[in-house]
Amino acid sequence: MKTPAIVINFKAYPQVVGEKGLELAKLCDSVAKKNNVEIVVVPQMVDLGLIVKSVDIPVFSQHVDPVEPSGKTGHVTPESVKGVNASGTLINHSEKRMRIADIDSAVKKCREIGLETIVCSNNLDVSKACSLTNPDFVAVEPPELIGGDVSVTAANPEIVKTTVNEIKKINPNVKVLCGAGVKNGNDVKKALELGAEGVLLASGVVKAKNQKDVLEDLIKGI
Amino acid sequence: MKTPAIVINFKAYPQVVGEKGLELAKLCDSVAKKNNVEIVVVPQMVDLGLIVKSVDIPVFSQHVDPVEPSGKTGHVTPESVKGVNASGTLINHSEKRMRIADIDSAVKKCREIGLETIVCSNNLDVSKACSLTNPDFVAVEPPELIGGDVSVTAANPEIVKTTVNEIKKINPNVKVLCGAGVKNGNDVKKALELGAEGVLLASGVVKAKNQKDVLEDLIKGI
Amino acid sequence: MKTPAIVINFKAYPQVVGEKGLELAKLCDSVAKKNNVEIVVVPQMVDLGLIVKSVDIPVFSQHVDPVEPSGKTGHVTPESVKGVNASGTLINHSEKRMRIADIDSAVKKCREIGLETIVCSNNLDVSKACSLTNPDFVAVEPPELIGGDVSVTAANPEIVKTTVNEIKKINPNVKVLCGAGVKNGNDVKKALELGAEGVLLASGVVKAKNQKDVLEDLIKGI
Amino acid sequence: MKTPAIVINFKAYPQVVGEKGLELAKLCDSVAKKNNVEIVVVPQMVDLGLIVKSVDIPVFSQHVDPVEPSGKTGHVTPESVKGVNASGTLINHSEKRMRIADIDSAVKKCREIGLETIVCSNNLDVSKACSLTNPDFVAVEPPELIGGDVSVTAANPEIVKTTVNEIKKINPNVKVLCGAGVKNGNDVKKALELGAEGVLLASGVVKAKNQKDVLEDLIKGI
Repeated sequence: MKTPAIVINFKAYPQVVGEKGLELAKLCDSVAKKNNVEIVVVPQMVDLGLIVKSVDIPVFSQHVDPVEPSGKTGHVTPESVKGVNASGTLINHSEKRMRIADIDSAVKKCREIGLETIVCSNNLDVSKACSLTNPDFVAVEPPELIGGDVSVTAANPEIVKTTVNEIKKINPNVKVLCGAGVKNGNDVKKALELGAEGVLLASGVVKAKNQKDVLEDLIKGI
Repeated sequence: MKTPAIVINFKAYPQVVGEKGLELAKLCDSVAKKNNVEIVVVPQMVDLGLIVKSVDIPVFSQHVDPVEPSGKTGHVTPESVKGVNASGTLINHSEKRMRIADIDSAVKKCREIGLETIVCSNNLDVSKACSLTNPDFVAVEPPELIGGDVSVTAANPEIVKTTVNEIKKINPNVKVLCGAGVKNGNDVKKALELGAEGVLLASGVVKAKNQKDVLEDLIKGI
Repeated sequence: MKTPAIVINFKAYPQVVGEKGLELAKLCDSVAKKNNVEIVVVPQMVDLGLIVKSVDIPVFSQHVDPVEPSGKTGHVTPESVKGVNASGTLINHSEKRMRIADIDSAVKKCREIGLETIVCSNNLDVSKACSLTNPDFVAVEPPELIGGDVSVTAANPEIVKTTVNEIKKINPNVKVLCGAGVKNGNDVKKALELGAEGVLLASGVVKAKNQKDVLEDLIKGI
Repeated sequence: MKTPAIVINFKAYPQVVGEKGLELAKLCDSVAKKNNVEIVVVPQMVDLGLIVKSVDIPVFSQHVDPVEPSGKTGHVTPESVKGVNASGTLINHSEKRMRIADIDSAVKKCREIGLETIVCSNNLDVSKACSLTNPDFVAVEPPELIGGDVSVTAANPEIVKTTVNEIKKINPNVKVLCGAGVKNGNDVKKALELGAEGVLLASGVVKAKNQKDVLEDLIKGI
């Protein structure tokens, strides 16, 4: 994915079940193309293959299991995600935390087969620790902000800036996304000013009464 | 799904990654239609929506998480499975074991929204226990036979017969599938004679050099 | 353990850390001996061996892992629980749910080595299912009542009676404990009248200002 | 714990069930005192309180759960470990892997209440990542060596040296233990020469025909 990027996590919200998820992906695709900005969608697991076929923007998986293609019923291998031509995957989202050895092995396997990785983390120490597994991106997600009404840039702008600076010191190849507290174009703008190379958000778009309006406002921040 | 049925679990085998999974599903569709038998496919999680759109036979999910549609990144809600028009789901496969309270809640949610359920179990006591959660099917999967070369009907035909009889005593609404040790049409035939109303198999088809030959042999058992 | 029994789960409450847990166990021991009633204590994991050595009443573990004695750092084998001369164990507590195949294997292993088992469950169907793994006891714990102020016998006396009756039908060897909503001697009395052979409680004793008073009131119900 | 140290993990081996675990702890205590060396024991969970009371050397827990003292049946809080006067705990052992956010929170809680921490890790990147959570020690445990016959210092001496050097660069407060492939005094000596400040071993002592001989050989390496 190109940066700056706006990454939309569909989670498992009722607003993206069935056709509604496909429609939201197409809306993101249309806004991205029309405005020439990078929007990435992260649909529900069972929709992944279908949505990749229906849009031109990058599509990421919400999770991969750190297992090899084999007799692993119900698991999502990186290879299966690559197999449907998705571009990358979230790893260690706050709602799907992973063991550190598994994060490390998943990131390495994804890199090997050509999937981009966004590792989510909950504070500065964990963000720094995760950056040492060499993902493409680390998304900082202070849990107290996830799904809430507070803007990360208003509430705690320093955490973004500090995370960017500290990670650059120990692993300059890793880019930082602002992973919580982003609601509007102004938040996006501030996140980028603070050194983030994009944002990861969910409810702000998915649960919006008018998803198109929110998307169009968000991209003004780029 | 109608019975007797042959349920093919694709697992996460390398042989079903990407287009190959879609092709296998189409092959099952074609064999089922041509011979007027019930074949059910259980593709990889990320392929589910895509494959439902491409075939007319029932498509099942390999797993559902017992959670409501909500902020549950990386989880597979029953509603998301229903949302892509899949017909049902495996629950508690030996490679994706679940807590008993979660099996119970997943089975109830699936019934409520119109998904059929196949609960997998590993021995007689657990099969009986699982039948009390009221799934449509219980699939007996003695773990020592999964993926192996031994035929359940040759090695231990009594477990199928006993499971059928004991389950009918405590919950006559539940049907039994023979969930391991099925390799060919003769195994299918014996499983049905022993009281099973279908079979659940994976590697015997997925890893076959000639998948079509195996499928055509299997259906002779019906 | 003899029935009727009052089983006190210490959980991991701050009120039982260190010497306080030992003191509560000794208090239970003293009340049980003085009144000739069966009180069973279930202390914190790391206190288990120490408390067994300090009291004469039965001591149960809060959990066992379904693994063999082996290289399993951090796991609690049934053999390690038996090794400190504990009498039995809780299995599948609502705060430590287990997979059904693991409940089955843990119950069987415990029986084999002489540990009694209390399998906890959250509703009628799950209670019946768990009874088929042949534990000594099933404790019904409707999750809405755990730790709350409502008495199960007041709020929903039928669930105890129905659970007792239904379990007796499918596995008459299994005894039922009332596992939530028990606060005082009157609740104990009602639970026994409804067919339970004991009660399992935690906060009502552990968090009480005067633990001795609560214990002495509880045993009046026997 | 003082360094250099020899840390003996009892795991859940049959050789430490019941009195045998206590005897091994006392043997370690006796060898440590007699030779004035630092030996630390890590007994089974249910033996922890009992063994702390019986020896003067430091006793560690095999695991802690990152939860607060509360209604958490079957969980091991750091406070419960501190409550029995243990000195510290292993965290993230290869047989009890943890999520990175949980490692971080467990390490912080332990530091706050005065428990030392040894975080186990499986390779260089994960060791470096774990060091950023600020534990007292990181123990490098290449999984291919755990429980095996190969000496880490013979097979791959560089991993110890490199881990020490790299960790010192990013977090000089963290000490490194050699966590696998240590069998005898010579291995201990080499590990210390390579920069480790101690060793963590299990089967080499626990499963030895003559545990005393092995202990007395090991301490020669210091």
